[in-house]
Amino acid sequence: MESSTFVLFGATGDLAKRKIYPALYNLFADGKLSGPLSVIGLGRRELSNETFQAQVLDSLRTFSRRKVEESAELQDFLLAFEYSVLDVGRPEDYKKLLAHVQRREELLNIPENRMFYLSVGPEFFGPIAGNINTSGLGDTKGWKRLIIEKPFGRDLKSARALNDSLNAAFTEEEIFRIDHFLGKPMVQNLEVLKYSNPVLRALWQNRYIANVQITAAETVGVEERAGYYDKAGALRDMFQNHMLQLLMMMAMQLPKGSTPEDVRSKKRHVIRSVRPLLKEDVARHVVRGQYAAGEIRGSKVDGYTSEPGIEASSQNETYIAARLWIDDPLWSEVPFYIRTGKRMKEKSTRIVIEFKEPFNDLHNKNRGKLELDPNLLVIEIGPGEGISLQLNTKNPRQHGQLEPVSIKHESGNPDLPEAYENLIYDALLGDATFFAHWEEVELSWQWVQPIIEATEEGTLPLHSYAAGSYGPDAADELLGEDHWWLDEELPAEQHEPNDVHETDPVAIRPGA
Amino acid sequence: MESSTFVLFGATGDLAKRKIYPALYNLFADGKLSGPLSVIGLGRRELSNETFQAQVLDSLRTFSRRKVEESAELQDFLLAFEYSVLDVGRPEDYKKLLAHVQRREELLNIPENRMFYLSVGPEFFGPIAGNINTSGLGDTKGWKRLIIEKPFGRDLKSARALNDSLNAAFTEEEIFRIDHFLGKPMVQNLEVLKYSNPVLRALWQNRYIANVQITAAETVGVEERAGYYDKAGALRDMFQNHMLQLLMMMAMQLPKGSTPEDVRSKKRHVIRSVRPLLKEDVARHVVRGQYAAGEIRGSKVDGYTSEPGIEASSQNETYIAARLWIDDPLWSEVPFYIRTGKRMKEKSTRIVIEFKEPFNDLHNKNRGKLELDPNLLVIEIGPGEGISLQLNTKNPRQHGQLEPVSIKHESGNPDLPEAYENLIYDALLGDATFFAHWEEVELSWQWVQPIIEATEEGTLPLHSYAAGSYGPDAADELLGEDHWWLDEELPAEQHEPNDVHETDPVAIRPGA
Repeated sequence: MESSTFVLFGATGDLAKRKIYPALYNLFADGKLSGPLSVIGLGRRELSNETFQAQVLDSLRTFSRRKVEESAELQDFLLAFEYSVLDVGRPEDYKKLLAHVQRREELLNIPENRMFYLSVGPEFFGPIAGNINTSGLGDTKGWKRLIIEKPFGRDLKSARALNDSLNAAFTEEEIFRIDHFLGKPMVQNLEVLKYSNPVLRALWQNRYIANVQITAAETVGVEERAGYYDKAGALRDMFQNHMLQLLMMMAMQLPKGSTPEDVRSKKRHVIRSVRPLLKEDVARHVVRGQYAAGEIRGSKVDGYTSEPGIEASSQNETYIAARLWIDDPLWSEVPFYIRTGKRMKEKSTRIVIEFKEPFNDLHNKNRGKLELDPNLLVIEIGPGEGISLQLNTKNPRQHGQLEPVSIKHESGNPDLPEAYENLIYDALLGDATFFAHWEEVELSWQWVQPIIEATEEGTLPLHSYAAGSYGPDAADELLGEDHWWLDEELPAEQHEPNDVHETDPVAIRPGA
Repeated sequence: MESSTFVLFGATGDLAKRKIYPALYNLFADGKLSGPLSVIGLGRRELSNETFQAQVLDSLRTFSRRKVEESAELQDFLLAFEYSVLDVGRPEDYKKLLAHVQRREELLNIPENRMFYLSVGPEFFGPIAGNINTSGLGDTKGWKRLIIEKPFGRDLKSARALNDSLNAAFTEEEIFRIDHFLGKPMVQNLEVLKYSNPVLRALWQNRYIANVQITAAETVGVEERAGYYDKAGALRDMFQNHMLQLLMMMAMQLPKGSTPEDVRSKKRHVIRSVRPLLKEDVARHVVRGQYAAGEIRGSKVDGYTSEPGIEASSQNETYIAARLWIDDPLWSEVPFYIRTGKRMKEKSTRIVIEFKEPFNDLHNKNRGKLELDPNLLVIEIGPGEGISLQLNTKNPRQHGQLEPVSIKHESGNPDLPEAYENLIYDALLGDATFFAHWEEVELSWQWVQPIIEATEEGTLPLHSYAAGSYGPDAADELLGEDHWWLDEELPAEQHEPNDVHETDPVAIRPGA
């Protein structure tokens, strides 16, 4: 890894404090950052370097997975952080920034490699990119890269416009779009599970798989994000990005090589092959829900429309489920069921692969037809990580009776690198494997566009579900003969006792 | 289940006390025995019914997995046991026995179903069968059945002679040859694992399997069985019966139906398909070993030839390993490695299925060629039961590094029915699925016959191995590029801290 300057827009924001500084610190402490470190934080408020460094230290103390202790190394780390005031719309501020960057490059002998991290609202992406271009900040002898966060548009058209504005200053190869689900260790493991395990590779096809269920359930409600969330909903906040990314990672074929482009071309192939929805058919394939009052682990909680900041008449969805088909021979006739929601019974992100039924024409002598549970491969992505396989075995205590048992592995180590550590590290290496390519983003918007339109036109009903349930009944009906595998039917996981604040971080506006 | 009379030859013997009485008691306590119970014990010594019942009670107290407590039920159970003195060679004793059986049948209103259990040495099988025939004991209005134990001959010729002598009185369908490995719950589970789990069924073929390793390792030495063992050796004591039965159970194809004949015809197909050895080739496929002095869990132990009752010059093997090929398209090019021995490092009976290597042409970027461990399916048969699958996953703490993890299931319940309970129960039901058919026995002898001959002719060397090791080095060389999966490479099992007396029970001679 070559050393570089890390230029952070939105340095006083929530995401920077909760995720970016702890990630940089843990990478530093793990010895993964090479060369002298130079981070230049940007914000609209005037701040001295000392105050900024104190804020960084404070965020580490609060959010780092690794305990922060006084040491010479910690001081070195903090001194790498300097601050520049910047109004994203003022070209002269970028000139000053360039001078600052260059001064540090010279002082620390850092090559002209510049990482621009835009931890700000998407309305600022275009102006910032433009100013990086015109100010000369982007004219580097080394590399320049851009890291941005969701939301990346709110429909196909706005996403395209946003991307065009970035392309004025950065090529696609220079843009690293974070989808933090792609930074989760078990999601990164999906590709490895397939290519390094012949037994799973053999089974990863429609010949053996009956259906695939991808769930991201939260127990929290809308929390402090009412203003953003009520305009986005589960479709834009989770489905178009995280859920479709999980689908791509799950369904992608094994790439021949392992370059980022090898992997991403296989992902594109998946999202391109998802059978398009016709606007008039959306209601047969998609279920929208909104949580009503209910109970989560014994505590009464309000319904969505009673949450602070939400209109009583809001028709925004807090739950969405869909049945998808991938028009590819590998997945022919295998439905993919995807659901995500807030205020669900259990917090869990997981993929359940249900295998086809065992022979049902086999008779257990004198005991009639066998009723066997299907084999399941369960990949737990969060909050705990794990892989389990449900098999049928003979119950040794009951002659001839069969029972399902699970063979399982849990990594059981809570001190894993966080998604942001993995992703920032990869971006610094220039490895885009686990970032969303523009075509993935565009094709995902294209696929959800009929859902957006059906919702706006009122042809996609909004179902109610009690907080603390598994979502609306309509989502069960969506599956026909199949059924959602519920937490209690799956191998027991250690669930976190309390579902602490763990919604997605969102970039807050500079100066907010 | 119809009620029947249980006629036990060798009622004062070791096997009866350690296995048969406890099995009957636990079946009785589990409510699995129907109707009035009538057991008639036979031996050469005069015993009153009361003394006999006291001996039975004593054996339950010592050997039953279920704690024996005073109760009316226990008294009922014990009163079902009566004793008759019998010299196996005296026809008039059988007449008296017939009268005894009939008296009890009449008194208890038991139909003329008679189970003859020959817990005696094999030299008595023929005379007993003949006398059952001539005495009229075998002329029943109901069914008659015979249960016998190993050893069933000591070579092909003697086994055939033995079987002919049984056939004078019993048809093949009436003969239940116990191989107590077939009574072990996990061995009985092998068929179920295949037919009720599509994911395993898919993988159970040479396309995916690299090799299969079947191990039965004991830590004990020859113990009190020197006289018998020094004439039998590991080949006759373990290999010809238990190990080849495990091979058949592992390699058999899925039967269309589930009658005993359906299963046994598939087993016969396996043993028939095992590629025959030429006497002059035996040394290339088979390794014999004998333990020398060594250490087991920190305790020094003697070598085989220093054991009490063993000649200092004994050339008997206490270890045998073999490489077999099954000439069937399903198993084409899949070697089966089989080994069994005494005084090995760990006590364990297990099957390890090693799957073929993952793609090795995949490169992990900048990290050179991947060195991946193969996937393994490990079926633990004893002392603990378990199933585990070794997969490769990404080590979430070391960027991009792969590591093997095991997903596993352990039944973890030590209070499982014992092999003898399962087998006696099946015999009473008339279900021969888990008993050795004559053709299996005959074909097994036929396969090992060249080994016997090469041994006798001195062309098969006897290797020495230290007690507490994994056997002779020659056994490692036998595998060529492959290697035996050792205990410490496999998912950690809970091993029993002490390897208490747990060799096979053998029927002792009546009157011994």
